[in-house]
Amino acid sequence: MKKKIAFISDHASPLATLGGIDSGGQNVYVAEVARYLGSIDQQIDIFTRREDTTTPEIVEFSPNVRVIQVPAGPAAVLPKEELYMYMQEFADHMLHFIDEERIDYDLIHAHFWLSGMVAMEIKKELDVPFVITFHALGIVRRLHQGAEDKFPLQREQIEQDIMWHADKIIAECPNDVKDLMQYYHAPQEKLEIIPCGYNPDDFYPIDRKTALAHIGLTDDCDYILQLGRIVPRKGIDNVIKALAELHESFPRLRLIIVGGSLDDLNQDTELARLQQQAVQAGLESKIIFTGQKSRDELKYYYSAADIFVTTPWYEPFGITPLESMACGTPVIGSDVGGISFTVRHGETGLLVPPHAPEQLSAAIKMLQTDIAKRKKMGEYALNYVQKTFTWGHVSKQIDTLYNQVIPVHRHHKILNQLKKNFHEASQTFIRSADLLPTQITKVAQEMCNTFVNGHKIMVCGNGGSAAESQHFVAELVGRFEIPERPGYPVLSLNADNAVLTAWANDFGYEYVFQRQVQALGQAGDMLICLSTSGNSPNILHALQQGVDQGITTVNILGKSGGRAAPLADYNIIIPSQDTARIQEVHLHIIHQLCWLVETQLEGVNKHTSTTKVNKLTA
Amino acid sequence: MKKKIAFISDHASPLATLGGIDSGGQNVYVAEVARYLGSIDQQIDIFTRREDTTTPEIVEFSPNVRVIQVPAGPAAVLPKEELYMYMQEFADHMLHFIDEERIDYDLIHAHFWLSGMVAMEIKKELDVPFVITFHALGIVRRLHQGAEDKFPLQREQIEQDIMWHADKIIAECPNDVKDLMQYYHAPQEKLEIIPCGYNPDDFYPIDRKTALAHIGLTDDCDYILQLGRIVPRKGIDNVIKALAELHESFPRLRLIIVGGSLDDLNQDTELARLQQQAVQAGLESKIIFTGQKSRDELKYYYSAADIFVTTPWYEPFGITPLESMACGTPVIGSDVGGISFTVRHGETGLLVPPHAPEQLSAAIKMLQTDIAKRKKMGEYALNYVQKTFTWGHVSKQIDTLYNQVIPVHRHHKILNQLKKNFHEASQTFIRSADLLPTQITKVAQEMCNTFVNGHKIMVCGNGGSAAESQHFVAELVGRFEIPERPGYPVLSLNADNAVLTAWANDFGYEYVFQRQVQALGQAGDMLICLSTSGNSPNILHALQQGVDQGITTVNILGKSGGRAAPLADYNIIIPSQDTARIQEVHLHIIHQLCWLVETQLEGVNKHTSTTKVNKLTA
Repeated sequence: MKKKIAFISDHASPLATLGGIDSGGQNVYVAEVARYLGSIDQQIDIFTRREDTTTPEIVEFSPNVRVIQVPAGPAAVLPKEELYMYMQEFADHMLHFIDEERIDYDLIHAHFWLSGMVAMEIKKELDVPFVITFHALGIVRRLHQGAEDKFPLQREQIEQDIMWHADKIIAECPNDVKDLMQYYHAPQEKLEIIPCGYNPDDFYPIDRKTALAHIGLTDDCDYILQLGRIVPRKGIDNVIKALAELHESFPRLRLIIVGGSLDDLNQDTELARLQQQAVQAGLESKIIFTGQKSRDELKYYYSAADIFVTTPWYEPFGITPLESMACGTPVIGSDVGGISFTVRHGETGLLVPPHAPEQLSAAIKMLQTDIAKRKKMGEYALNYVQKTFTWGHVSKQIDTLYNQVIPVHRHHKILNQLKKNFHEASQTFIRSADLLPTQITKVAQEMCNTFVNGHKIMVCGNGGSAAESQHFVAELVGRFEIPERPGYPVLSLNADNAVLTAWANDFGYEYVFQRQVQALGQAGDMLICLSTSGNSPNILHALQQGVDQGITTVNILGKSGGRAAPLADYNIIIPSQDTARIQEVHLHIIHQLCWLVETQLEGVNKHTSTTKVNKLTA
Repeated sequence: MKKKIAFISDHASPLATLGGIDSGGQNVYVAEVARYLGSIDQQIDIFTRREDTTTPEIVEFSPNVRVIQVPAGPAAVLPKEELYMYMQEFADHMLHFIDEERIDYDLIHAHFWLSGMVAMEIKKELDVPFVITFHALGIVRRLHQGAEDKFPLQREQIEQDIMWHADKIIAECPNDVKDLMQYYHAPQEKLEIIPCGYNPDDFYPIDRKTALAHIGLTDDCDYILQLGRIVPRKGIDNVIKALAELHESFPRLRLIIVGGSLDDLNQDTELARLQQQAVQAGLESKIIFTGQKSRDELKYYYSAADIFVTTPWYEPFGITPLESMACGTPVIGSDVGGISFTVRHGETGLLVPPHAPEQLSAAIKMLQTDIAKRKKMGEYALNYVQKTFTWGHVSKQIDTLYNQVIPVHRHHKILNQLKKNFHEASQTFIRSADLLPTQITKVAQEMCNTFVNGHKIMVCGNGGSAAESQHFVAELVGRFEIPERPGYPVLSLNADNAVLTAWANDFGYEYVFQRQVQALGQAGDMLICLSTSGNSPNILHALQQGVDQGITTVNILGKSGGRAAPLADYNIIIPSQDTARIQEVHLHIIHQLCWLVETQLEGVNKHTSTTKVNKLTA
């Protein structure tokens, strides 16, 4: 199934460089999934907030993948905590873009709650289904960060709204499912676990010596690697404390800390704090602060390290363990969030509690002591992530999810449209109930008079109205509800194909009814014309002929009544512009007229006659 | 217009003797109007509460008039103030009686508010219109009687409800109109002034001497007559006071007081009070208390008197002034209620304020002084009431009112039924919206598959369903909303009359569709049968033939689905038992199917194609 998918990634553009305070896993996720889906011929547009005016609005990112930079708020990098107020503008621009480009997206994939807001708006306007990957959840973040959290208070309620409106919610790991259900009561049937991934072209094992040489370290030490954004919740101080307990027993042990801005320690207060901690612990010679490194350098650090350590307080998913495993290096990680899921304890590394330096040091000690086991873990880790966590695997699962959502939504959309049509029809009946009864009683009275005076009724229409004309005659020559009555003299002018084709072929279709009115009609008769538009030429000619012959003329119409209305003695005009809805009420009015005429002529009342006789067959 | 009218007169039976504390004007009104209407060939049933068990339930009262004695509460005379609690029982019995006797009353005429409650109930149940004569109004009574009023507090609200639900309200005089509008905000367009009347067979002038002799009085005195129920509000003490002022100047003047129970003064405390008042005023020789007299005696009293006096505090209508005038005796009356209307001041008598003995004595003095004027007033009074107030005149006006109400109500009833039908249809659509969309999408998908695979669809039905079958084909071979598409291969098996009549005549109508399915159908084709019952034999044969030939079978049905349902691959069954409502939804489903098939096969979506093309003519 070839699809058109819109990604919304409010703050995390695939174009942004990695490593800034607000660029991280989400940018990679969006870029990698889009690139893969584009490579299998899906068409992806990534909508992201424009952060500068130097790059063009639309950037071709990779085959079949465009980045649409949406102007919403200032064209500058802003903390994502400040973006909430620009999301309506974002949605408006996105809707405008979709309208201008006339694109029918099959599905939207929103990333982060702010993008989810936009997706809800687009779904409301265009009924495009959406899938959401939250990447992080407000309640979970608040539980761990408390007052540090600078997002607006509405976030948690909006996240819950998004969960109600989303077609599917991608949870990144089982802990994510637990959080979504426990804190948000997310509907279980919408949840689908699809993890994040890594790119095997970027992360692969490099010979340790080569790697050490590349990053300028000697191979006479054992290296523990800590890599990632330098923020308190990553628990880097925990790693320093663990090293403090070990460094005397393992004097060759070194800790490499990659990340942060060494050039500007006044700004990067967290890095400064960690350096101070290292000095206070007497570890300044054992810890190597490298500062932030570019993405293509990272594989050397992962490959050079003997152990990768990451002990954050919490971690929605955590891509660095995957990258480490992809370079063949086992991971010691906090038993939290996605790490519990990606690191297989005892097989691809070890899991420890967060905030627990003694347990971390014990784990490091174990892997420093049993080198064979550590090596085996590294091999197993590499094998494991290659089979499970490449972006190719991940993207295929996402594509499968899209393929589930799209037809289900399309089916719901059709069902909703059918329901809407039923309700629209129902409303047309309600409007008719207000407007038409008086006129219906007048026409019924005229019909009764016509029969009582020994005259007849002719009925005509075209197409669907021709069918209804015959329906009308069937009820009157036959019976509506009282079979014991005589048939009434009524005939349909569109029923005899020989007559119709004879006159249409020789003199023109516009005269087929006129000819019959002239032939069959007598003064005192009645002509009833069914027409949704009131503009059919053969109807107009028939009416004029009726008027000329002293025949009572009645129209059952719709819309404006058309040119037929002024030609008739009585007009019943259905209050609708829709041909199908008009015809449906026409049939109802035919039934109402039959009921009125039959009850009046047969003198039915509730005691002297008849429980209602329903037709046995019809 | 010959009519069946039900009177409801909860406490005032025409059978009851007049003169008791609770029998008075209303009994006469009901009896006289009913008798007159019966005499002009209207059929009247008077429903009244049964007060004893000795008379039969149904009494023939006069030609065409029956009294129906309704068991509601104890079979004993009760004060009307205690009847409120029995009115639901009254209404239930009356409904039961109507149902048992299978009578269609054209109209109900309720008398008094308690009867109005019953009329409201009957109208609610059977939609019979009603006219009400209140005879007295709760608010007005309370204004004049205050705490003396023993009716339940709900009375005034119920009276207002009755005014809202009544079709017409008979006011007895202009003061009544004023009260109804001022105190009850009664809808003005419902008010009709029709007075009470008198019976000229009962009241006519008798020679004064003959009359005096008949009642045992001498003609050497002048007689003032006070006649009526002996209750305080009648202001009889006012008349005694007036006499006290006059008796010395007019020694021949006598006051005759007719009414009350002389035999039981312990019970009739009011009469005892008046006798005491007479003694205290030294008038015992001037006032003649006769006690209550039978109805046929009254004309002698009226005829014997020189002046009739009635000065009640208030009087909704007051029949005694009419009776007096009918006997040629002028009236001095309070300028209140109906008396202001019936007594023409200075022409048929004089009007004085109530509670004003000086003004009453002045009026008596005037008529005692100017004998010629008094005689002229008597003649004029007789002439006036004969022309205006006989029960014949009154009843004709009431009959005219009925003749206005009945057709207006009948028209409203028809309009309401039409509205109800529209709403019932609307509700059938709403129910269908809940139940049918999934099945409709399945049938539409099968229709698309049939066309895509190069096969055709056959449609058939009988009567109205035959017409809808052709409507369906017209939309598919023609177009629903997209004229640019090719026609789809669909044909109606009920469209060719030559084929139908050939096979029906020679082999039976039940095989007309089967024969065509056999002739035209191929494996992979589809057969769609329209039937409200699902039991038409020709449909059943056609379905079986389709099954045998490997044709996909679809039913569009109603009710239980009938015997056709088990024969088809797909059934769409309208949730209704009503043939007409089912057919209306059938047409809607035909339109829905056309829309689905057309949009799916023509690949319509909102950007690439088409504003909806409405038919120019249909």
